[in-house]
Amino acid sequence: MNTHSCVISGPLWLSAQIMASILKVLFLFLFLYFIPIHSSVDHDNHPLDPLTPLEFDQIRTIIESSNHSPTSNISFHYIGLDDPDKQTLLSWLSNPDSTTKPPRRAFVIARINHTTHEIVVDLTTHSIVSNEVYTGHGYPTLTFEEQSAAGLLPRDYAPFKTSISKRGLKLEEVLCGSFTVGWYGSKDRPKRVVTVMCYYLNGTVNFYMRPIEGITIWVDLEKLKIIGYRDRIMVPVPKAEATDYRESEQKLPLGPKINKITVLQPDGPGFNVDGHTIRWANWKFHLGFDARAGPIISLASIYDIEKNEYRRVLYRGFVSELFVPYMDLTEEWYYRTFFDAGEYGLGLCAASLEPLRDCPENARFLDGYVTGQNGTTVKMANLFCIFERYGGDIMWRHTEFGIPGTVVTEVRPEVSLVVRMVSTAGNYDYIIDWEFMQSGSIKAVVGLTGLLGVRAVKYTHTDQIEEEVYGTMLAENTLGAYHDHFLTYHLDLDIDGEINSFVKANLQTTLVTVGRSPRKSYWTVVCETAKTESDARIRLGTKPADLLVVNPNKKSNVGNPFGYRLIHGASVGSLLSEDDDAQIRGAFTNYNIWVTPYNRSEKWAGGQYTDQSQGDDTLAVWSLRNRDIENKDIVLWYTLGFHHVPCQEDFPLMPTLTDGFELRPNNFFESNPVLKVRPQNYRSPNGWSTISV
Amino acid sequence: MNTHSCVISGPLWLSAQIMASILKVLFLFLFLYFIPIHSSVDHDNHPLDPLTPLEFDQIRTIIESSNHSPTSNISFHYIGLDDPDKQTLLSWLSNPDSTTKPPRRAFVIARINHTTHEIVVDLTTHSIVSNEVYTGHGYPTLTFEEQSAAGLLPRDYAPFKTSISKRGLKLEEVLCGSFTVGWYGSKDRPKRVVTVMCYYLNGTVNFYMRPIEGITIWVDLEKLKIIGYRDRIMVPVPKAEATDYRESEQKLPLGPKINKITVLQPDGPGFNVDGHTIRWANWKFHLGFDARAGPIISLASIYDIEKNEYRRVLYRGFVSELFVPYMDLTEEWYYRTFFDAGEYGLGLCAASLEPLRDCPENARFLDGYVTGQNGTTVKMANLFCIFERYGGDIMWRHTEFGIPGTVVTEVRPEVSLVVRMVSTAGNYDYIIDWEFMQSGSIKAVVGLTGLLGVRAVKYTHTDQIEEEVYGTMLAENTLGAYHDHFLTYHLDLDIDGEINSFVKANLQTTLVTVGRSPRKSYWTVVCETAKTESDARIRLGTKPADLLVVNPNKKSNVGNPFGYRLIHGASVGSLLSEDDDAQIRGAFTNYNIWVTPYNRSEKWAGGQYTDQSQGDDTLAVWSLRNRDIENKDIVLWYTLGFHHVPCQEDFPLMPTLTDGFELRPNNFFESNPVLKVRPQNYRSPNGWSTISV
Repeated sequence: MNTHSCVISGPLWLSAQIMASILKVLFLFLFLYFIPIHSSVDHDNHPLDPLTPLEFDQIRTIIESSNHSPTSNISFHYIGLDDPDKQTLLSWLSNPDSTTKPPRRAFVIARINHTTHEIVVDLTTHSIVSNEVYTGHGYPTLTFEEQSAAGLLPRDYAPFKTSISKRGLKLEEVLCGSFTVGWYGSKDRPKRVVTVMCYYLNGTVNFYMRPIEGITIWVDLEKLKIIGYRDRIMVPVPKAEATDYRESEQKLPLGPKINKITVLQPDGPGFNVDGHTIRWANWKFHLGFDARAGPIISLASIYDIEKNEYRRVLYRGFVSELFVPYMDLTEEWYYRTFFDAGEYGLGLCAASLEPLRDCPENARFLDGYVTGQNGTTVKMANLFCIFERYGGDIMWRHTEFGIPGTVVTEVRPEVSLVVRMVSTAGNYDYIIDWEFMQSGSIKAVVGLTGLLGVRAVKYTHTDQIEEEVYGTMLAENTLGAYHDHFLTYHLDLDIDGEINSFVKANLQTTLVTVGRSPRKSYWTVVCETAKTESDARIRLGTKPADLLVVNPNKKSNVGNPFGYRLIHGASVGSLLSEDDDAQIRGAFTNYNIWVTPYNRSEKWAGGQYTDQSQGDDTLAVWSLRNRDIENKDIVLWYTLGFHHVPCQEDFPLMPTLTDGFELRPNNFFESNPVLKVRPQNYRSPNGWSTISV
Repeated sequence: MNTHSCVISGPLWLSAQIMASILKVLFLFLFLYFIPIHSSVDHDNHPLDPLTPLEFDQIRTIIESSNHSPTSNISFHYIGLDDPDKQTLLSWLSNPDSTTKPPRRAFVIARINHTTHEIVVDLTTHSIVSNEVYTGHGYPTLTFEEQSAAGLLPRDYAPFKTSISKRGLKLEEVLCGSFTVGWYGSKDRPKRVVTVMCYYLNGTVNFYMRPIEGITIWVDLEKLKIIGYRDRIMVPVPKAEATDYRESEQKLPLGPKINKITVLQPDGPGFNVDGHTIRWANWKFHLGFDARAGPIISLASIYDIEKNEYRRVLYRGFVSELFVPYMDLTEEWYYRTFFDAGEYGLGLCAASLEPLRDCPENARFLDGYVTGQNGTTVKMANLFCIFERYGGDIMWRHTEFGIPGTVVTEVRPEVSLVVRMVSTAGNYDYIIDWEFMQSGSIKAVVGLTGLLGVRAVKYTHTDQIEEEVYGTMLAENTLGAYHDHFLTYHLDLDIDGEINSFVKANLQTTLVTVGRSPRKSYWTVVCETAKTESDARIRLGTKPADLLVVNPNKKSNVGNPFGYRLIHGASVGSLLSEDDDAQIRGAFTNYNIWVTPYNRSEKWAGGQYTDQSQGDDTLAVWSLRNRDIENKDIVLWYTLGFHHVPCQEDFPLMPTLTDGFELRPNNFFESNPVLKVRPQNYRSPNGWSTISV
């Protein structure tokens, strides 16, 4: 969830950014004017590589210089790779020596003079391909800078100062952050606004546990001005004692305590990073990064030792949206229905990963880049970590007692490769893992940790509660608000080629006619190939079925179509009514599963412009066309979810809660692809010896 | 699943056992007669400790000597600890210096002169407390020896020899195993029989992939004689090329290949094993072992640093039954509806764990003991492993961008403690893990691997199939039969004391009346405390709810009852009709959740005598009494399941498929119990350095 922007307010951070910007301009100047022999585009880049700092600078320069008026107000809300057309890319990949390399282009969303522009920049020709004004509903992702600036406005706003003083609080200990406001049915074009909500620092870094409840401040983001103010109710700021989570602040007794433990890879890691292409064991894939989606896995292929070739599995996979509706109807809370990818940017909110804590000793780290509001590059250090995971699990085993005179045991330990990014969307931290298994499975796992969105109340004990409070009492004056988290994954599977079908292998109870068998029932598999989009909308938990993406044109030696199966996590769907405006905007969660035909423009399940969207550009709307999906290039959309009823253990910081799914080969290989894996059987040279006790 | 007994046939193994038996008797003789000063019972044992080799010998001696006729035919089908009465044990534990230590007793199920006896032996007084003949339905767990002996019968059976010769097979390459036959509505008392099914070895150890289909042999286990024979149909034995899974048999190219990886704990493991009591981090628990259930976790308590005391969580947890119905109606298959715990014994079928493969370098191993049919002790080496697990996961984290001038990041890596046993019930291997988390969660995870139950067919390609085949074509002449696995866990939670209640915290969509809020809907939590057993029967997937076991008499400072939440795995239930005899026997899978009042005799969800049971002693039958369960000592029963539609990757040996559940503290602690954990931050002294790439 995100009850907050990534940044509350950050004057020092802004200064650092201005410095970086100056340095970057200087660098660009030197580079472009004094080293003209080198093209500014690296032609060795993979067409899916994220934009480089140099490219960001080019883009900014091209757009700024094309903008005739020097007084234009330009702010960049999104700069990312304009994905090459899939067919163009695939055809180039199949013959990369040709001159058909897809054009290198950037897609830019900028507010220019208070209007949303969609600009495509060609980085080879250094030119603007198109520049169109967007006039539809919704607004682009918020920038860090405007969120920070909005958060600073209350400090100088007299009515707010009065409110703070009335509460006996110190103004200098108040921190404010920007909240997106959603849309509740108004037909007028709304202004681009946020609300600003404030917290009390006063000695803790865990200010989220100290909300200053009852005050709402509306800020016009275009004018960066307060346009509305309401101090509705006075509620005690929770004392929130011992809520600081920093190691240095912990009081005795500490604990629990465990012995040192780490991972040892004497020969170093076994994966190879070449640009953004990662090779490990039988896998190769491209790891991209996007300010909105965070990690993007592309072109994941697995080497088939029997066929002696890499076979395609996943053309592209990423988190398309993260919908976090709260269930609190109080005036300051009802609208909190966040879209963390579209409104705040999962990549933009990425945390710098801590070696040995966020990732084990054998991890390697990759940096990434986003741009600030003014288009300058911001480096995200340790954005990703990549490591081989060995948690003591077993990949496969068998002990055979059945052969006289011998006991046969064969075991292979499970080692996988994990790509991790953490997105800290305000209070919540989302650990986003992609895990590649030697057996051919791809697992996507999300861990939820960080801080709850809590509401301050007058109560100090549940016995006092005399109204509906929409949450769990966690501590004195502190309610953990009920909410959901829905992560919608875009999974463009290309099972041994892009032409695929979606199959529901329904497990159907069959009653046995008398005399056929002593059994009265059994289940059988009734396969149903989805012909159009409506056939593939599924609410999980209602009907037992194996869900498969298959290549109907390619079959195994014994005749089974090559496929991958989705093994889903908990069957959690939205409980909101479909006519609720919040749910209309988040209508992609009406079902856990959707399948669409590939369409280059259909990337964001909640629409391109999610902030204040009106739900007219969601996956649910696209799907209404009910297009053909059988034997087509198709995209699987899967939504996993958490209904979160907070408990006291989640306070003041919650232990990780995990869910995920697995894409598992299903008649894709002729047989178990890891049967011939050599066991590692490795013992550290200086390890203590393993003894029976 | 178990399409087979643990042992196919094992003449050499039997010989080894006879040798062991001779040595054991010799040892017992020496011990009892020459060292009389030591009592044969160790009074320092914990009352829940499994029976020792010495005790097994005592039991056998006591029973044999009480049996007046020397010609009596005695076979021991179960010898295990006769659990002390819970109240007696708890009261002794609260004051262990008193003289009220529960009596040390064994529960024995023996067939004496072809009658089932239930014998209770007191190990302190060396006497038989009771000896009762069981006259109800069903038979005890099969012994290894009788399964082996039954498997050897066909070799000397002329009609079988003719069948084998007719098929052009070599008799010396044929291996046979015993299969339990279930019950299909007959009102007569059935004989104690198994069917024997045969496989063809011929150069592979993976004989399960080479079934000799179409022959059924009925064996009377009491007489160890073939009492029925049918050779129904000739089907080619699958060639099953390259199905041998032994490392030595793999042909080039091997792969995939990965770099060495291991776990390093320079100070050794951080857990302590004292007898069968294990202490690690904030946990302590007792690890027992039972021939039927395998691992038994008892008295799991967690140390609360704020309260400065251990608090009770789980009085006892174990796998009560493992039901594996197949969905194949052919004559040789319809009855295969196995109860792996009750019919074969999960503990009896335990595999010896391989260091560095089944468990990581930092694991420690524990041995265990069962008895053979003649009552002599059989040592199970490396029965359990225990290790600290660090897979690179994050216990909790947060990055705070919101405070001007600083970025705060705190992260704690996740390290947990795993107790593992593997039960190899014939072809299938079940990896049974209990995992203890510092955050207070207990996870139970089961991994399914090993070999499929396959049926031989005439077809070599799916195009040829012209009838219902009840399975997936995996290779030429090879079908992977559809089946389920249901693991039913007995979870006697004692949340801070034994008097608990079961609460369904239903998440209920509420429509908002116009004017109350711009929102049209939200969900709220409607708690429902189960009053009687019928209130607590739940088919998962039908209704969103948090499922809690709470102590209604003990509340947190702000007034929430202490509780634990069950976070369940996939919502998989039986698809058989409730009137199917197989389902009547497995009726404990009619629901995923049941709650019963604690009753010492209600341990085995499928009944005490599962072999050929008639379903009159299942959890479903007990629950019909609809007893009060509110504010009582209650037991939660949870069934997790897998519907298994095999795929080619499962052939000839399946990569592990995993599911599990978590018992997670829910308002049990006042706040996050791991906030004050010190980060480890440990790097191996000779590790390669972590670098950014």
